[in-house]
Amino acid sequence: MTAPFLEECLSVLTRTPATLDTLLRDLPEAWTAATEGPGTWSPYVVVGHLNHGERADWMPRLAIILEHGRSRPFDPFDREAQFRESDGKSLPTLLDEFTSLRRDNLARLRALNLQPAQLELKGTHPDLGPVTVRQLLATWTAHDLAHILQVSRVMAKRYKREVGPWAEYLSVMK
Amino acid sequence: MTAPFLEECLSVLTRTPATLDTLLRDLPEAWTAATEGPGTWSPYVVVGHLNHGERADWMPRLAIILEHGRSRPFDPFDREAQFRESDGKSLPTLLDEFTSLRRDNLARLRALNLQPAQLELKGTHPDLGPVTVRQLLATWTAHDLAHILQVSRVMAKRYKREVGPWAEYLSVMK
Repeated sequence: MTAPFLEECLSVLTRTPATLDTLLRDLPEAWTAATEGPGTWSPYVVVGHLNHGERADWMPRLAIILEHGRSRPFDPFDREAQFRESDGKSLPTLLDEFTSLRRDNLARLRALNLQPAQLELKGTHPDLGPVTVRQLLATWTAHDLAHILQVSRVMAKRYKREVGPWAEYLSVMK
Repeated sequence: MTAPFLEECLSVLTRTPATLDTLLRDLPEAWTAATEGPGTWSPYVVVGHLNHGERADWMPRLAIILEHGRSRPFDPFDREAQFRESDGKSLPTLLDEFTSLRRDNLARLRALNLQPAQLELKGTHPDLGPVTVRQLLATWTAHDLAHILQVSRVMAKRYKREVGPWAEYLSVMK
């Protein structure tokens, strides 16, 4: 019996790779390479960032809390790692990686069979200080959704001029 | 040979039903009924709104432009219609409807075999004035993306308190 909160997070976390795959795979590069301007991320960059999170952020940090509690701070997360790790990879390859990495991570998470009391265990974020397992899982979930939001925003804004007078009705264009 | 701009719109328009289906079907109601507060829309309400758009907005307006040009303004669009039309329907039913309505509309759009010159034909929006076929198609596309954005934003914000100190790093929570 898994904690209900964990099940709620899992219901979103399991869906994200397929959601992004459905939205992005085989889409013309005009969409997947679009950005909001210099220094901002394209859908392609976002998928690489999510992959780095699967490798270096969520499950490794959960493992640190379960093993060391507050005594060992998390390793800092590299927000630029995808520019190195995605190099030379196609978007379909990155989407396949995301599906596979996420599947493995969620299998490991389920295998931990976390109990409600364990959700309150604390770790140490290098910048934010004390955080709980529950907050880590909630952030993993919200982070997925925030990047689905980002991808759809970047794509919508590509048509800021194309929509003409309708821009007035589309708050994303403002 | 379809206009390249139309193909670019179609690449997004064809994917939206499956994207929302993947994100939302069988998700706990805590997610799909969540809102951003009184008077704001849940993911469930958004899907109903998209269905009304398939019935009353995009293709009917395109037909009006092709048949009447600027002489006949579009019928006004009812932004609240889904509260009536979705009544008693489950989210899976609404998602099935969206898939079916969109498939039919895009089949009809492709069958029109619009040529580049036709994209510049003008109609009359009841509030915004003159708009082109190209702007209508761009808006249909951006409107899909804006509602994927909205659904993911509504869901992410459900965890505003759950993420604890991480809220600082998630601009969607601000």
